[in-house]
Amino acid sequence: MVKRIDLNCDMGESFGAYVIGDDAGMLELVTSANIACGFHAGDPVVMRRTIRMAKEKGVSVGAHPSFADLYGFGRRRISGERPEDLETQLIFQIVAMQGMAALEGHPMTHVKTHGALGNMAAVDPDLAALCVRAIRAVDPGLIFVTLPYSETFRAAEKAGLRVACEIYADRSYTDAGELTPRSQPGAVIHDPEQSLAQVLEMVVNGHIPTTGGKRLPVSPDTLCIHGDTAGAVAIARRLRSALEENGIAIAPFAQA
Amino acid sequence: MVKRIDLNCDMGESFGAYVIGDDAGMLELVTSANIACGFHAGDPVVMRRTIRMAKEKGVSVGAHPSFADLYGFGRRRISGERPEDLETQLIFQIVAMQGMAALEGHPMTHVKTHGALGNMAAVDPDLAALCVRAIRAVDPGLIFVTLPYSETFRAAEKAGLRVACEIYADRSYTDAGELTPRSQPGAVIHDPEQSLAQVLEMVVNGHIPTTGGKRLPVSPDTLCIHGDTAGAVAIARRLRSALEENGIAIAPFAQA
Amino acid sequence: MVKRIDLNCDMGESFGAYVIGDDAGMLELVTSANIACGFHAGDPVVMRRTIRMAKEKGVSVGAHPSFADLYGFGRRRISGERPEDLETQLIFQIVAMQGMAALEGHPMTHVKTHGALGNMAAVDPDLAALCVRAIRAVDPGLIFVTLPYSETFRAAEKAGLRVACEIYADRSYTDAGELTPRSQPGAVIHDPEQSLAQVLEMVVNGHIPTTGGKRLPVSPDTLCIHGDTAGAVAIARRLRSALEENGIAIAPFAQA
Amino acid sequence: MVKRIDLNCDMGESFGAYVIGDDAGMLELVTSANIACGFHAGDPVVMRRTIRMAKEKGVSVGAHPSFADLYGFGRRRISGERPEDLETQLIFQIVAMQGMAALEGHPMTHVKTHGALGNMAAVDPDLAALCVRAIRAVDPGLIFVTLPYSETFRAAEKAGLRVACEIYADRSYTDAGELTPRSQPGAVIHDPEQSLAQVLEMVVNGHIPTTGGKRLPVSPDTLCIHGDTAGAVAIARRLRSALEENGIAIAPFAQA
Repeated sequence: MVKRIDLNCDMGESFGAYVIGDDAGMLELVTSANIACGFHAGDPVVMRRTIRMAKEKGVSVGAHPSFADLYGFGRRRISGERPEDLETQLIFQIVAMQGMAALEGHPMTHVKTHGALGNMAAVDPDLAALCVRAIRAVDPGLIFVTLPYSETFRAAEKAGLRVACEIYADRSYTDAGELTPRSQPGAVIHDPEQSLAQVLEMVVNGHIPTTGGKRLPVSPDTLCIHGDTAGAVAIARRLRSALEENGIAIAPFAQA
Repeated sequence: MVKRIDLNCDMGESFGAYVIGDDAGMLELVTSANIACGFHAGDPVVMRRTIRMAKEKGVSVGAHPSFADLYGFGRRRISGERPEDLETQLIFQIVAMQGMAALEGHPMTHVKTHGALGNMAAVDPDLAALCVRAIRAVDPGLIFVTLPYSETFRAAEKAGLRVACEIYADRSYTDAGELTPRSQPGAVIHDPEQSLAQVLEMVVNGHIPTTGGKRLPVSPDTLCIHGDTAGAVAIARRLRSALEENGIAIAPFAQA
Repeated sequence: MVKRIDLNCDMGESFGAYVIGDDAGMLELVTSANIACGFHAGDPVVMRRTIRMAKEKGVSVGAHPSFADLYGFGRRRISGERPEDLETQLIFQIVAMQGMAALEGHPMTHVKTHGALGNMAAVDPDLAALCVRAIRAVDPGLIFVTLPYSETFRAAEKAGLRVACEIYADRSYTDAGELTPRSQPGAVIHDPEQSLAQVLEMVVNGHIPTTGGKRLPVSPDTLCIHGDTAGAVAIARRLRSALEENGIAIAPFAQA
Repeated sequence: MVKRIDLNCDMGESFGAYVIGDDAGMLELVTSANIACGFHAGDPVVMRRTIRMAKEKGVSVGAHPSFADLYGFGRRRISGERPEDLETQLIFQIVAMQGMAALEGHPMTHVKTHGALGNMAAVDPDLAALCVRAIRAVDPGLIFVTLPYSETFRAAEKAGLRVACEIYADRSYTDAGELTPRSQPGAVIHDPEQSLAQVLEMVVNGHIPTTGGKRLPVSPDTLCIHGDTAGAVAIARRLRSALEENGIAIAPFAQA
């Protein structure tokens, strides 16, 4: 059987006069776009333009909600608000993106949490359940893009929400199957060869190689492509080519 | 035939810890609620709570979009952005409110523009047409609450968009049928008796009495009730009682 | 010797059209005003008006900085930004308030951290030291209003920064001398008599009565008066009268 | 006598994770930096970093205030707020920048209004006077960078505020001495040779060449260098070199 993987990228993160990322360039390469919803990044004009470009390129679109925190770009860890209020903020972002995508005739397929919210929910069962409730409240048919061996993965499975299992090329994994925290040495894989080998191991052989030498089972659906670093498009292009040369088909998980 | 009128009020204008207006009190009295969409006021938590309260009281809900201007509360006149960008901002607000209302099982019925945007569009044919396009892009079945003898009214009629004709109790009208600008003497009617008489003249007899002594034909659908002034609920209660005592039925235009 | 205490109150928390608190009423009663700096609340117009009113009433003014978080009103706990960036944000707020006060001819005397930042710094030595550095960077002559038995108190003393020791009338204290967390029973003292007794014990006898029955030494300089609750001015008036009737002089710490 | 000109550039316009312009590169070339104050762009961290870099390069720093409008980057025309409120907003921005610059030991020398505010004030005597009052309220020794033949220039002269007369290389001038509006053909000069010729005519001969063929007297102090366009640094470098080759000394107006 031909092995396949989706390539997803966060985008639509520009705001007013502020531009982040080469969304047009990245849309030539990825198969799923996670679009910011105006809370940590993005605005209606950016959202609409990004949805239109994605539709034109046949790229699936999803909501990429986070904390209400433009200044922190969703990277600041925020706590202390009532859980039901955070849930409503997520619902709003998902509803709004779904509505904008529907207007453009390009129905939204998935949701991926952004930044600090994603990191916090991955290890906090309550926050993970909150995210799953928010998605299901909007549309139980949506796919939740999340990491394997995470609380969000478990919460989605428990609630019967469809999950797209997301892997990273340039991050190492702990023996628990989690991303090695960036604060630790070896968290980021800088060597393109090593990145490719890790992805092939996960996609072809179904194993996560861990820093402790374990091999954890995984069924990856999508590979995270970074969009906001220098040379992001070129890096993505090389990675995509390498995957294809190794016989991996690139296709949206949402149409799998 | 029994004469009837809807009472509409702007609400959902609180933001985070900031509270404006007694929405719960006003929802006991009005029949249509225009809910802020988070751009000039409001936030997702406030939107959802207001929709839920309105549903409980059987009050119709509508989107109340404006400029992206929380600091100015939508009262600052803003120009210079690309018309298509402003249109997209309005679409976003209407889509988001419609989605939130749908989630609560209380479908949105109408749209009313807020503050400076409403004032500017009332006299600017291009801006009026832009507002009408934004509403129709989301849902051509939505009702546009707008003033008689305004560019917005004309633009809606031209585009075949259903209009709810809105009148004011406490504002005088020029011979052109427009609200007398607040900068002019006599713009605001402070006497409750005079306010009531004006409303009855408009609702019962179908005439707008103007400052120049004219009587312009009008078919009012809804009366604007102010929610953000001191004693707003008490004033609204007296006005509603007086209307009922004069044989006017109070009912939502959206169900008319 | 006559015992004396300052009364401080957070104010200037309105924003644009949004009003919080009866600042004019409270300025009749307190002796020190902690004014929001536009990050979690407040804006330049509110800042200037509050400074002017405070000057007129002879009330000392201080900066009341917090996280950049208008939506959360500074009550959300925020982490994950670079410490030097947070320090610069605090410096900015203190510098701006000092500049505005200087323009009005009413030199700023003190700084008190707001909300979540204050709570977090009280128990985090690094964050406490950061706050102290920010204040000293602007002006080492400023007084830091902070709780006894807190990390902020210790950090200020260590750095040689003058401290105004702040006590609460309506909050109980743990055996460690800290405020009982609001999540615990008995954290808030609702009985005015008990509140008054606690204040007198602290001001007259120099002891903090703790929930475990201890009596910890304290030299209070200022009593926190809440401004954003219903009936705040009436509560403050009664407390001030009761203190005066018990022979306590009410005077700004900054002139002590 | 050697002719001299200052080169000024707007910078410090990044916000949080959003980067605009190559400030470090531009600071190698210009002699005065107009730094955004956090209302239309910029934040405390960006302000401080920009001031430090400017100090290191010996570049004068000034405040670059505008409307409170991050979404519109200060390019949206905003009206309808009370003039005294806008004045206070400008004062706040100037005070805050002055305070931050003072902390860094690099005293602020000037003020230049940004974007829509600048354009509006240039042709509106009331708004021009408001800007001048705001600057003088903070420090009457500050220099106001403004266009010749503008209301701001006139208002500054009338109030005795020192002016730095600013010219453009890539914009044509009307017979009234104003910049040709961008909406009109020929407003922007795309040819580098023509740009250089215009600057030399203004700096060396003291004449503004107008689109109607007039030559209006001018005593330019500073030339506006754009920082937010593609290749801005390269364009600025070529222009600076060309000026120097033509015997023009490049020096800050603030030290003139």
